[in-house]
Amino acid sequence: MPPFKTRFRVSWVDTDAAGIVHFSNYFKYFEKAEEELYRTLKFNFESIAEKYGVILPRVEAWCRYKSPLRFNDLVEIEVSVRELKEKAVKYWFKVCNKRNGQLAAEGYIVAVAADKNLGKAVKIPEEIAEKLRAYMET
Amino acid sequence: MPPFKTRFRVSWVDTDAAGIVHFSNYFKYFEKAEEELYRTLKFNFESIAEKYGVILPRVEAWCRYKSPLRFNDLVEIEVSVRELKEKAVKYWFKVCNKRNGQLAAEGYIVAVAADKNLGKAVKIPEEIAEKLRAYMET
Amino acid sequence: MPPFKTRFRVSWVDTDAAGIVHFSNYFKYFEKAEEELYRTLKFNFESIAEKYGVILPRVEAWCRYKSPLRFNDLVEIEVSVRELKEKAVKYWFKVCNKRNGQLAAEGYIVAVAADKNLGKAVKIPEEIAEKLRAYMET
Amino acid sequence: MPPFKTRFRVSWVDTDAAGIVHFSNYFKYFEKAEEELYRTLKFNFESIAEKYGVILPRVEAWCRYKSPLRFNDLVEIEVSVRELKEKAVKYWFKVCNKRNGQLAAEGYIVAVAADKNLGKAVKIPEEIAEKLRAYMET
Repeated sequence: MPPFKTRFRVSWVDTDAAGIVHFSNYFKYFEKAEEELYRTLKFNFESIAEKYGVILPRVEAWCRYKSPLRFNDLVEIEVSVRELKEKAVKYWFKVCNKRNGQLAAEGYIVAVAADKNLGKAVKIPEEIAEKLRAYMET
Repeated sequence: MPPFKTRFRVSWVDTDAAGIVHFSNYFKYFEKAEEELYRTLKFNFESIAEKYGVILPRVEAWCRYKSPLRFNDLVEIEVSVRELKEKAVKYWFKVCNKRNGQLAAEGYIVAVAADKNLGKAVKIPEEIAEKLRAYMET
Repeated sequence: MPPFKTRFRVSWVDTDAAGIVHFSNYFKYFEKAEEELYRTLKFNFESIAEKYGVILPRVEAWCRYKSPLRFNDLVEIEVSVRELKEKAVKYWFKVCNKRNGQLAAEGYIVAVAADKNLGKAVKIPEEIAEKLRAYMET
Repeated sequence: MPPFKTRFRVSWVDTDAAGIVHFSNYFKYFEKAEEELYRTLKFNFESIAEKYGVILPRVEAWCRYKSPLRFNDLVEIEVSVRELKEKAVKYWFKVCNKRNGQLAAEGYIVAVAADKNLGKAVKIPEEIAEKLRAYMET
């Protein structure tokens, strides 16, 4: 399956005094894309916690910045699954600026499945893992 | 008693592409000053919820912008209590830019005491009200 | 003309430890809706500054909170123009939670037209005023 | 020289519906600590741009999350310089939770010196490099 894609506009509030999107906001963009992917797959952070008692805290996040995004730019984020282990998933994100066709940034988030109450690492629920597997990079 | 005062620097992330602090961030500044006031009074949102079963959701917020704040400006916020009713408190904030001595903004937040579990309005715990009374505008 | 409407989902990052959207984020939502309105009208903050040398700084903002928004809620924001003076515009926003049909919040932003370089108040460019007039409350 | 240290409290607005500091905010914390270091060294983003015509855009950022931070936690951030090249600097950050003495997170930011007008990479001004050298990890 091709990577999941979602689009949105850069809001004014995301910019800083350099006139570009603040570097911390790319991590919000990553998560927003992840939320949209989950929505497409018919689950979300809260439904996973309710149904399986599992939360997915982030243990690592990284971003490489390639070219700045500015106010009003149309952004397209591609999400794919780079690694899917028993208890962890690494999402890969590509942030493309549709105004100029350039790669604005790329990065990843690693999330680990954990028991909602005990906090210790557990298996990613198979139903979730199966859906994520469809977005594995090939 | 004179109004409570707290100081901090404007961070880069608070600015927008106009080179000034984004208007939404003044509300974060208000709350930050409220948090510092609470700290001085030896309580906080969570300890109030634990001890009295009371939360203080915001029901209204307003700000008038007078002169822009920029990166690195030293900000001083004055907090006082403008109105203290049985179930509600209105905080008044003055945001002063110590770089130029100008009033940057002023505004208010109205919070209502509510039962943590039932959600309905309740009296502000007397111990809290008493402490807030000391910061009433005169 | 009916008010302008735009929809989006509440992101996880917009929530706070009370499990609801932080009160400062409603002002970001207001601005986001304003940006979408502008987009529909074929201008934006930057194009106005370039074409007319006019910026539109906020001088006042207010919000009344009616019922909390939570993660993943589908939000619909209505924007209308409540007042249109020679040099100032007051936008009115209604934030509706489409999950339960409730009004989540309502509020306003007042912006004043100002010369980009001199900073002093100027007339709202007629081309902009005309487009905004179509969204006056009736 | 020992690493630079700065302390602040976790604000309510930094938390999310899981009751912990949102993962994107650690990058704001890193930058805030960097700003404080700069302040101690008597320069800042804007003074560098004015004096040397040099900006320091971020090209990479990374964080590993070890234990969650909660509202009101007292945070201490250590900043050191892990790598100092002719045109780039890698800052290393350790985020310590003084409530429980635990390492909350660690991470880095890589910034590259660039000509303010042309955008191309240039040498870090020697006066800045010399000051940063004092914070090199040993």
